[in-house]
Amino acid sequence: MADTNDPAQQLAERAARAMFARDRAARMLGMRVSRVGPGHAEVLMQVVPEMINGHDVCHGGLVFSLADTAFAYACNSYNESTVAAAGSIDFLAPARSGDALTAVAQELWRTRRSGLYEITVTNQRGERIALFRGRSHRISGKVAPQESSETQ
Amino acid sequence: MADTNDPAQQLAERAARAMFARDRAARMLGMRVSRVGPGHAEVLMQVVPEMINGHDVCHGGLVFSLADTAFAYACNSYNESTVAAAGSIDFLAPARSGDALTAVAQELWRTRRSGLYEITVTNQRGERIALFRGRSHRISGKVAPQESSETQ
Amino acid sequence: MADTNDPAQQLAERAARAMFARDRAARMLGMRVSRVGPGHAEVLMQVVPEMINGHDVCHGGLVFSLADTAFAYACNSYNESTVAAAGSIDFLAPARSGDALTAVAQELWRTRRSGLYEITVTNQRGERIALFRGRSHRISGKVAPQESSETQ
Amino acid sequence: MADTNDPAQQLAERAARAMFARDRAARMLGMRVSRVGPGHAEVLMQVVPEMINGHDVCHGGLVFSLADTAFAYACNSYNESTVAAAGSIDFLAPARSGDALTAVAQELWRTRRSGLYEITVTNQRGERIALFRGRSHRISGKVAPQESSETQ
Repeated sequence: MADTNDPAQQLAERAARAMFARDRAARMLGMRVSRVGPGHAEVLMQVVPEMINGHDVCHGGLVFSLADTAFAYACNSYNESTVAAAGSIDFLAPARSGDALTAVAQELWRTRRSGLYEITVTNQRGERIALFRGRSHRISGKVAPQESSETQ
Repeated sequence: MADTNDPAQQLAERAARAMFARDRAARMLGMRVSRVGPGHAEVLMQVVPEMINGHDVCHGGLVFSLADTAFAYACNSYNESTVAAAGSIDFLAPARSGDALTAVAQELWRTRRSGLYEITVTNQRGERIALFRGRSHRISGKVAPQESSETQ
Repeated sequence: MADTNDPAQQLAERAARAMFARDRAARMLGMRVSRVGPGHAEVLMQVVPEMINGHDVCHGGLVFSLADTAFAYACNSYNESTVAAAGSIDFLAPARSGDALTAVAQELWRTRRSGLYEITVTNQRGERIALFRGRSHRISGKVAPQESSETQ
Repeated sequence: MADTNDPAQQLAERAARAMFARDRAARMLGMRVSRVGPGHAEVLMQVVPEMINGHDVCHGGLVFSLADTAFAYACNSYNESTVAAAGSIDFLAPARSGDALTAVAQELWRTRRSGLYEITVTNQRGERIALFRGRSHRISGKVAPQESSETQ
């Protein structure tokens, strides 16, 4: 992760660390949060043989899970607890066993309560695997405990 | 699964068995295909602690994976290889560790190449967890090898 | 519209009348609210030659407009001002000049702030033209002025 | 429209002209195709008082209609007859009477039969009103009659 003196960047990294420590699902699927910042995140996942479905390609639900995880780290990057209200995905190309997938989440729009995020999943050749759009909903609570120096 | 003399029902069950034998992802996530028939399917999944995300609820990607699996067994029930083109999900309530989830997929519409399916995910108390709509796309090939008695 | 002594039904009808009086777009498109009640509505629209697009069928935006209008009357039927946050539509069959379309909106789920509605558009032969799903968002204010006998 | 010697650009403009001549719905709503090229289009619409709904803002169906029209001109720009299979819209801010709206459609992905397009609707101050994503489906036929110099 980037190491800067920007408080918003530091907050995003702190929230991501706190969330990942509790995120057993992301760890079970071998995901790694490679970058995070205010309103954006990048998450990596290797397609292993256990992820293959009945058509010999990566299960679409696991491609969705990768995109949804990048979405979660992006929309929680302000350290306000935020969950997915809805998501939609278009599958452009299959992912196969051995592929190294990258999901990049970008914020499109955000109000106090709601947000929209666009997530692109690509493989190791830069080919697009899926496009995902997520709608976030802020709930009460912080992701990481608030530090004394931070104002609400 | 139901045991009938209806050829369409038998074909759906045969396709489901062939697909599940190759579906490592569904098995890794502990899913079970509890019912299948022409254009519909029911799939079960227990939420285990490894499925929990950074907000202490079941990862939305795994709820999607369950719904997407029911969708897959429903849209492949005619034994024509069919994949997901797109899916959208609305998350209504969180699923928690220990919950027993059921996804029921129903066909809304189907042409030769495309189909629309509605999937409802509920928990053991019958509460709705998520609503999923999937668009299928038929590709070439059969799910299970064609038997000599079947006509195209 | 139905004429009953049910206060919820009466409120839905009162909200619909107040909304329709201001709804110049629905009237410009010749729509008629044929039924309304708590969480549901039915709206009719005739496809006239001015609604035809470059492919000689009814413009998809006008089919969406009909569905969106049924959605609006359903989600405002509690007399709490409510707007569309998002909508998605699947086009199943074309509508043609002269067709009489009916949109039926049903509530799928509702919390204090958000709701999900399913709208089906059919033609005069009962054929499905489109399926629409809408997400509503409650804003402040009432649709029709509150009457003294009503409690918040 | 741009005036170039690029055959793809010329084809896009010819298809747009042929389509607009038949597109009574777009003309009824006062739309203007301000730019078109291979895989993209820009369409303008003024919000007039007849477009206002029961909440005193532009009817969401008409915002959708504008976005859907830009989508249609973008996906028909190769002169292959192409229709909308599905569309989803997120409403970010209301449009009001007097607003001058612009919809810009960009191609995200295209195969021989299907395509995905992203459409952004903004007002005269550059504020985003809505984000639309459309899935196209190619049908048989050409938009404008094929000219002798063109190859399939």
